Amino acid sequence: MTPPAPPSIDILALGNAIVDVLSHVDESVIDGLPVNKGGMTLVGAEEAESLYGTLGPGVECSGGSAANTVVGAAMLGARTAFIGRVRDDHLGRVFTHDIRAAGVRFDTPPATGGPKTAVCLVMVTPDAHRTMCTYLGASIEMGPDDVDEALVRDSAVLYLEGYLWDPPGAKEAMRKAVRIARGEGRAVALSLSDPFCVDRHRDDFLDLVDADVDILFANEGEITSLYGTDDLDDAIHALTPLVKVAAITRSEHGALVIGDGDVHIIPAEPVTRVVDTTGAGDLFAAGFLTGWTQGRTLHDCGRMGAVAAAEVIGHLGARPEADLRALVTERVPR
Amino acid sequence: MTPPAPPSIDILALGNAIVDVLSHVDESVIDGLPVNKGGMTLVGAEEAESLYGTLGPGVECSGGSAANTVVGAAMLGARTAFIGRVRDDHLGRVFTHDIRAAGVRFDTPPATGGPKTAVCLVMVTPDAHRTMCTYLGASIEMGPDDVDEALVRDSAVLYLEGYLWDPPGAKEAMRKAVRIARGEGRAVALSLSDPFCVDRHRDDFLDLVDADVDILFANEGEITSLYGTDDLDDAIHALTPLVKVAAITRSEHGALVIGDGDVHIIPAEPVTRVVDTTGAGDLFAAGFLTGWTQGRTLHDCGRMGAVAAAEVIGHLGARPEADLRALVTERVPR
Repeated sequence: MTPPAPPSIDILALGNAIVDVLSHVDESVIDGLPVNKGGMTLVGAEEAESLYGTLGPGVECSGGSAANTVVGAAMLGARTAFIGRVRDDHLGRVFTHDIRAAGVRFDTPPATGGPKTAVCLVMVTPDAHRTMCTYLGASIEMGPDDVDEALVRDSAVLYLEGYLWDPPGAKEAMRKAVRIARGEGRAVALSLSDPFCVDRHRDDFLDLVDADVDILFANEGEITSLYGTDDLDDAIHALTPLVKVAAITRSEHGALVIGDGDVHIIPAEPVTRVVDTTGAGDLFAAGFLTGWTQGRTLHDCGRMGAVAAAEVIGHLGARPEADLRALVTERVPR
Repeated sequence: MTPPAPPSIDILALGNAIVDVLSHVDESVIDGLPVNKGGMTLVGAEEAESLYGTLGPGVECSGGSAANTVVGAAMLGARTAFIGRVRDDHLGRVFTHDIRAAGVRFDTPPATGGPKTAVCLVMVTPDAHRTMCTYLGASIEMGPDDVDEALVRDSAVLYLEGYLWDPPGAKEAMRKAVRIARGEGRAVALSLSDPFCVDRHRDDFLDLVDADVDILFANEGEITSLYGTDDLDDAIHALTPLVKVAAITRSEHGALVIGDGDVHIIPAEPVTRVVDTTGAGDLFAAGFLTGWTQGRTLHDCGRMGAVAAAEVIGHLGARPEADLRALVTERVPR
């Protein structure tokens, strides 16, 4: 048997294709809503419309967790692709334009009927934390047929967002992609996305981490939620035998990268002013995975993640504005 | 004859209702386009679509010069209203949501047919300067019927953007509004908007400044273009006898406020990092006019303009993100 050809894509992401509408709100707004502060709550079309009506002026910016990650990775020089579903409406065209313009291959055809392109109302409180309400819209339409088998085989890393467990068809799409990737000996990476999302799908996540995940991204809240513990060390002990690499992000305390039998302590990158934490985890994964596909050390991968995350929290929105590649070249030299 | 009742609106603006799509570009992109760097070029629908296709990822944010000004003024506590025309499409709803959410009264009904809501492709170069291509779209539909006579009579200041001379119907709307405002003894303020716009409509601008303008906003390029001179002092000498107040903005050199027989030199407000100059002039006018309607000194009005302008150039987009009112209270105490 001949070994598989070297992949021509570094990172292929599956995710919900979402446009964010970001606005500043007071803490009292969050207190008055049936949402989890700092988390993501799913809402219906009417609920989203009515909430939007109550919010202040917004900024629209393409988002979606895994989409943000491949955009960041592309900006760092990685060869990337994305699978996700929009509709053929204004926001679908915006999402498609933005991800392609960043250099990400994106060929999933837009839905020509059914729900509108997904939107996420991102409410940023004065502490710079974000609370999100997502209307999944056309993301609900994603299914196994959207997974291009050749593309998965041709990608070094298959990257999945935990949010994909929310739309039912997407879950099937993800399982198909995982099966293909593992069959080809590719790496499977997963971000747990959100502690409440972990709550909704704990057993599925535990199975996937146990059986299929090589690289896991999580923050403290997500990993302790996964293992039903309050203690980070306990969660890490439960996790360590199951995955090759785990990156646990800890906001201003930096990150822990566990792998190669070691725990690497990654300091947070200094930030002048934290404006909006939206996308911090997504961009950490972007930096980390780009380093990983470039054969950097785990410590350097973690540092690259920290530099990319620091850029995105310095402004509104989850897509980088600065020249990420120049930042990483300067801050994490080879 | 009884004197008119005190106005219930501080600032009423007439302007093009536009949604901005902001993206970062290299200098070479601007060099390769038939546009004026730092200026605004009008483009058709197809031209806008094709240019958008070549640009990098974007951020969508409500804009429009005079609309930005009343939004800033509303955030500073002024009672404001806006007249401008969108279509009943996605971007029209975004524009309407954002301006109303900022506290600006906006009742112009959207067009139900014809061209789409106006968009401005704002290209931000690494020097933080912006070059704009505007598709006027539904703004072309604005006309005298959109000017609510009672609203104009009820507003202390009528504020006009020079860009209104580009769509033919808007010019008529503006003339009607000026006639009503002057009949009621209200102040008329004008921003010259853009040196190339001044070039296109010099005689009209000269007539209006001569006959009707009380408060003029211009930057160095615009005011020297208006009087066909390279010398700022010459332009100021030509202008001074014609208006009550003139505010000449000079980027990092601050501003000159001419009025009450004096020239007030306003230093620029310190900025940590200039990210995007889009909206600097609009927000200067917002701060200035808010001060003016509050009876502040001309020097304080200029300082309020400088503080508001400094906020908006610290991030991407022409609408303020920070608490402008708190900034002004701190930086320009009574």
